Parts: sequence; structure tokens; C-alpha cells
Amino acid sequence: MAPPPPSMAPRMTALFLRVLTFAFLMVSLVILTTNTDTLETGIGEIKVRFKDMYSYRYMLAAAAFGLAYTILQIALTLNHIVKGNGAQTSGDGKLVFDFYGDKVVSYILATGAAAAFGATKDMKPIFAGLGGDKFFNKGYASASLLLLGFVCTAISSVFSSYALPKKV
Amino acid sequence: MAPPPPSMAPRMTALFLRVLTFAFLMVSLVILTTNTDTLETGIGEIKVRFKDMYSYRYMLAAAAFGLAYTILQIALTLNHIVKGNGAQTSGDGKLVFDFYGDKVVSYILATGAAAAFGATKDMKPIFAGLGGDKFFNKGYASASLLLLGFVCTAISSVFSSYALPKKV
Repeated sequence: MAPPPPSMAPRMTALFLRVLTFAFLMVSLVILTTNTDTLETGIGEIKVRFKDMYSYRYMLAAAAFGLAYTILQIALTLNHIVKGNGAQTSGDGKLVFDFYGDKVVSYILATGAAAAFGATKDMKPIFAGLGGDKFFNKGYASASLLLLGFVCTAISSVFSSYALPKKV
Repeated sequence: MAPPPPSMAPRMTALFLRVLTFAFLMVSLVILTTNTDTLETGIGEIKVRFKDMYSYRYMLAAAAFGLAYTILQIALTLNHIVKGNGAQTSGDGKLVFDFYGDKVVSYILATGAAAAFGATKDMKPIFAGLGGDKFFNKGYASASLLLLGFVCTAISSVFSSYALPKKV
């Protein structure tokens, strides 16, 4: 049986997922890096930034790495489409790169979001009396967007697993 | 070209990874659930258990789910070997189950470990003066073992992606 003719549809779906991931990670990064608040303590006011939480620093690293990877993938896909061979299948090397790239990046994004959720959930009650709610709520918002970026990358990862050439 | 004859080796490697995952998750669970400590506060001693940390509760759920999945996979593999058709490839349904199972469970294990690491790293300094070091160090130990269990499952996931039948 001859293989079915390749179409543009899977490539456009993949591109759509990448753009969605890009948007989620970008907004997540903006919310995270602009997150500052002032805690009212008995010895005066303390300014907190995302850098004061190790989990948020890891989340930043995860989101930045994911963003760089997603931009690279968007650029490669666009390049492929513009060159006019968008309807053809990629080489095996690119497919293997997609497979491992999506796999590793999706794990990094998942752990980034999980670390931030875990720390926020357990830290928030401790600082509840000091007015840190806004800071932690923004942490939740940033982690939630990172989680959505992870979901998109995990779906990309399913596609790239199915596209994997057998017996490399 | 005829496909190469299937051998027992990949199946034994897969089984070895499952058994290793089982061991890591089991020890992680034991360390986590037996983790208790006493904090010395100004108003008296406070007993802490893993249940007091939301992240550790999630870690428990993740490890327990991963353990149940791993036991199921070991049972299925042993059943396959004992029935004497261990050298043959499995049906497509089983391969797709392995693929999605490994993928989902490895994400769950990764997030469980990450949530616990994130919360432990940020919480430990806060309780450092109250004698909570032992409690958080055991949290680290448990999360590290969960991370090792995740690594094994992630490797299984690479194998199950390569074994995936194309165009399901």
C-alpha cells in the first residue's frame, strides 16, 4: 500500500501549538519577572521579588529555556514552509531532534510549574498575615501559564513521537 | 529487507527498568510516610508530619500512582514472559497503552519530585532555627528517589515511543 500523500495540515497544527506555547511562556515570564510586593513585618517593610524564591528562579530558567526552544522550532517550521517544501516530510535527523527536544523541554516546563506551585502552596499561608497574597497569587498565575505551555509542548511531544522514524 | 528477528533483550531491559523504578518509588514512599519531626517553637513543641506540607502530599500521590502503574507493567511483562511468547512483539493496543502510560506517569513523577524540591528548598530556611532540618532533609531524600524513579520511567518512555506503531 502506498503511503498517503503528505499534507500541510499536520505542519500547521504543529506550528499553531508552538505559537500557543510561545504566547503562554511569554506572558508567564512577564508576570513572573515583574512580580514585586512589600511585606509588612514587625521590624519594617520588606520588598520581595521573584528572585527571593528559589522555586521562582527555577521557574524563570525553565520558562526561558522553553521559550528559546519554541522560538527555534517556530523559525525552523517557518523556514521549511517558506522554502516551499512545507508539504514534504522532514529528514530523519530533524524528526529525532523534535522527539528528544519536545520530550526534554516538556519535562523542564512541567517541573518548573510544579516547583512553583508546590512552593507557593506551602509558603503562602506562612506570609498570609504579612500581606504577601498578591505576590503569591502572581506566582500562581505565572505557574498556571507555564503549565498551559507545558500542555501544548506535551501534545507536540505526542506528535513528534508518532513521527519518529523506527529503528534509528 | 526483512525485519530483524525479535529477541528477549529489549524486554529484559524494559523489565529491569521497571524493577528499578519500583525500588526507587518504594523507598521514596517509605521515607516520606515515616517522616516526622518535632519543631521547637516559643509556644512549645510542634510535631510535623509529611501531611502538613501540601507538596509532600502531592509527592505521596504521585509516588503511589507511579508505583501502582509500575507494578501493573511488571505483572504484564512477567505474564508475557511466563506464557512463553516473551520473544514476540506485543499487540498494538499494548504498545499504545505503554506509550501513553509511560508519558503520563513520567510527567506525574517529575512534577511530584519538582513540587517537593521547590517547597523544601524555600521552606527549609524559614524553619532552620526551629530544628526542622531533619524533616526537610528527609523530604529531599524522598524527592531525590522519586526523581530517580522518574528518570527510569522517562527512559522507558523513550523505548515505548520507538516501539509505537505508526499511523494508529
